[in-house]
Amino acid sequence: MPDPRFYHRAGPFELGAVAKVAHAELQGDFDPRAPLADVASLRSAGAGDVVFLSTEKHAAELVSGACGACLVSAPLAAKVPKSAAVLVTKDPRAAFADVAAMFYPPALQTLPASEHISADAQIAPDAALAPGVVVGQGAEIGARTRIGANTVIGRGVKIGADCEIGANVTLQYCIVGDRVLIHPGVRIGSDGFGFVTTAVGLRKIPQLGRVSIGNDVELGANCTIDRGMLDDTIIGDGCKFDNLVQIGHNVVMGRNCIVVAQAGIAGSCTIGDGVVFGGQVGIADHVTIGDGAQIASQSGVSRDIPAGAIVMGYPAKPIRQFWREVAAIAKLTRKP
Amino acid sequence: MPDPRFYHRAGPFELGAVAKVAHAELQGDFDPRAPLADVASLRSAGAGDVVFLSTEKHAAELVSGACGACLVSAPLAAKVPKSAAVLVTKDPRAAFADVAAMFYPPALQTLPASEHISADAQIAPDAALAPGVVVGQGAEIGARTRIGANTVIGRGVKIGADCEIGANVTLQYCIVGDRVLIHPGVRIGSDGFGFVTTAVGLRKIPQLGRVSIGNDVELGANCTIDRGMLDDTIIGDGCKFDNLVQIGHNVVMGRNCIVVAQAGIAGSCTIGDGVVFGGQVGIADHVTIGDGAQIASQSGVSRDIPAGAIVMGYPAKPIRQFWREVAAIAKLTRKP
Amino acid sequence: MPDPRFYHRAGPFELGAVAKVAHAELQGDFDPRAPLADVASLRSAGAGDVVFLSTEKHAAELVSGACGACLVSAPLAAKVPKSAAVLVTKDPRAAFADVAAMFYPPALQTLPASEHISADAQIAPDAALAPGVVVGQGAEIGARTRIGANTVIGRGVKIGADCEIGANVTLQYCIVGDRVLIHPGVRIGSDGFGFVTTAVGLRKIPQLGRVSIGNDVELGANCTIDRGMLDDTIIGDGCKFDNLVQIGHNVVMGRNCIVVAQAGIAGSCTIGDGVVFGGQVGIADHVTIGDGAQIASQSGVSRDIPAGAIVMGYPAKPIRQFWREVAAIAKLTRKP
Repeated sequence: MPDPRFYHRAGPFELGAVAKVAHAELQGDFDPRAPLADVASLRSAGAGDVVFLSTEKHAAELVSGACGACLVSAPLAAKVPKSAAVLVTKDPRAAFADVAAMFYPPALQTLPASEHISADAQIAPDAALAPGVVVGQGAEIGARTRIGANTVIGRGVKIGADCEIGANVTLQYCIVGDRVLIHPGVRIGSDGFGFVTTAVGLRKIPQLGRVSIGNDVELGANCTIDRGMLDDTIIGDGCKFDNLVQIGHNVVMGRNCIVVAQAGIAGSCTIGDGVVFGGQVGIADHVTIGDGAQIASQSGVSRDIPAGAIVMGYPAKPIRQFWREVAAIAKLTRKP
Repeated sequence: MPDPRFYHRAGPFELGAVAKVAHAELQGDFDPRAPLADVASLRSAGAGDVVFLSTEKHAAELVSGACGACLVSAPLAAKVPKSAAVLVTKDPRAAFADVAAMFYPPALQTLPASEHISADAQIAPDAALAPGVVVGQGAEIGARTRIGANTVIGRGVKIGADCEIGANVTLQYCIVGDRVLIHPGVRIGSDGFGFVTTAVGLRKIPQLGRVSIGNDVELGANCTIDRGMLDDTIIGDGCKFDNLVQIGHNVVMGRNCIVVAQAGIAGSCTIGDGVVFGGQVGIADHVTIGDGAQIASQSGVSRDIPAGAIVMGYPAKPIRQFWREVAAIAKLTRKP
Repeated sequence: MPDPRFYHRAGPFELGAVAKVAHAELQGDFDPRAPLADVASLRSAGAGDVVFLSTEKHAAELVSGACGACLVSAPLAAKVPKSAAVLVTKDPRAAFADVAAMFYPPALQTLPASEHISADAQIAPDAALAPGVVVGQGAEIGARTRIGANTVIGRGVKIGADCEIGANVTLQYCIVGDRVLIHPGVRIGSDGFGFVTTAVGLRKIPQLGRVSIGNDVELGANCTIDRGMLDDTIIGDGCKFDNLVQIGHNVVMGRNCIVVAQAGIAGSCTIGDGVVFGGQVGIADHVTIGDGAQIASQSGVSRDIPAGAIVMGYPAKPIRQFWREVAAIAKLTRKP
């Protein structure tokens, strides 16, 4: 469930009210007065939660007792276990956007102008805050951690011990480990880029997850890491990012990865340990990359990459094949 | 004409003085004491304005009464209507840079250190400003709009109602609509990237336009949008930008476009409605893209794209042709 | 040697102590009590300095008297001149990381929370600082220079006369010339991206150099320029950068170069005068590019480029060859 440090939940709401907001049809023999507690991802849902199922691929995650109600299209309705209420709708993702906004109405993130450091923030006595730092309500800053000038730490953010956070940084909706080095201008925890197309334009899907940064991570200047939609965006221990790197929502990255400058990893990618991303690499969404794979600079990856593979190109392919093709193309223009 | 909220005009200046600053030769029978009021683009010029014509392509925009004086090269001098003074120069763009700097000498944008919120800013009573926010002279902030910590709102900037502006943002020389969501680290209104080559190095062309952001726009973390040179850079209603997107000066973008992370659109592009730009796409300057076109990730576009087209590649081509070529190249290296 | 404005040196240390920290074997007849003064690059080392030699290519820079001790692998030990102590280790770069951290233990860069402008900063009386500006100890700001709101100037930074530094900028470990224009969100002087792989993960190499910015330079919004490892990252007079450009550590760039938006130049590249980089170009590390070369947008360069060449593609090649290949590829898929 969305972390109460960051999100204030409304509700519970009755099943009938949820169906109405979702413009969905309640099927079967469920009491429309049954209470629903929260929204959740398929992976993390509990018995009273509302989830959505948009593709058959994820149906296996729906087991008995896994949720209270499921927004689903008619063709997939039979995939929902008997224990859950079936809410049939044409576009389950769009309907979920409405239900998520019902449980989590937009909350003020800005602070009252009167205080730079919130009185109820927990700041270690030997932490050091430079001038102009702003710390939101309930934020925690660990021992010996230093925060650079004019950096903004949002409400509920937790930073571990022995971190160095640079100047002009913005941290929101995130949990940061120990010994993390964050360079100036980094933005962690902004909204993920999720929209549904409606008749009146693009409708935002509420982003209710967090960013979790492991220990011993380094993030270069002006990097951006979006928070997850429901689950977390996760950067594993020991990862090192160069400058201007972009990480989309719900990316799960293993340990000790290297990401060179201006690379971008789109939403919901799953990255193993020790993966190396060259400069300006682009990874499409929902791609899985195995341990120790290496992606050469400027490559464009839209399919899964197995562990240990070394790929290059646009589209990316095994690096030897890339260079063979470069030679073959050059040969095409050679005069006989 | 440049918006007086942002630019302090000197002058008027006499035609002869303008010719002198421009190192241009005044042709024909014009009184060198005639006053000139301002500089302008061909598109927006009025009777007393100085313009420049650098390519024959734009000559059609020069109609009778459209300007007071025109900087032009000798071969194009005959294109200038009789009503306007002809100022002949080898490099009209470079000469215009000098004249623009004459009318608009560099003005202090920085604020006195004594006040964070300028006394004459107009801030709605129910707007919320976080700690460290700086608001320049004459800026306007609409109802219920919230401004994040340490954000800087430049002189004359106008922000509509119900906007959420993140922390550590810089807004200058811009007009922002209603319900706009701007994530941390966004930079709007910096100088466009315009230079002329001279014997002593690169000479800056004064950037005297604005950025106009429509309603319901969302801009991701650390995006940059430059202001126009004379006319405005325009982002239409409902456009959604992911993180680290770059928009050059004088881009005119329609409504409901989607721009995925790290894409860049160079100066003076004209973009229709509902265009989708994949991640890390690059669009060269002066390109026109029709409604509903889709540009696949990492594509490089240097020619116009018709409405509804789906393109991919470097250089970009119809997406089916791209994949056909990928297959043909792979075949080259296959053993028989 | 690292600039004392930015780095506090410990030591001197005895040769034996250095060998121990480096896990290196001291060869030959040197007194383990001999003092060593500092760490240095091969290029800038003096008689009492510790250097490292990792590849045969750089052995020529090691001449008699050029250093006090050299970390080196066994196969290259014979390249060290007799005047210097030989410290044999499997991984000289990793050993140097340990020795550099011995001479330069991590120092607090953050400021006490009590003062925005350090009392011992030297600020010209006619310089203008906007609200929220933070200036570190010993920093110097020249005549008529203006600093935008909420910008952070680190300890020891020197900025020349007539500069305009935008809002929300971070300057650290750098020397900036006269008439420099830095747009909002620029980050200068962050750590270079240098690591050695160890059994327990990635180990950071201390970054002890600076960034040197020439006169009349312009840097676009949200650009990032890392400082050198030991020597400086250098941007020559008159260079103009568009937005979101990335420059790696130890890049040496000549004069009047143009770098269009989102281009990235990796570490230790050497760039001539008047080079033009198109948008989203990527240059691999240690590449040399001659005067007046032009790199077309989105090109990927991993080999040296001679003066005056015009290249395009991934990998980059002469631009006419690029377009010939594009035509040849298109022909492959044409029906007969």
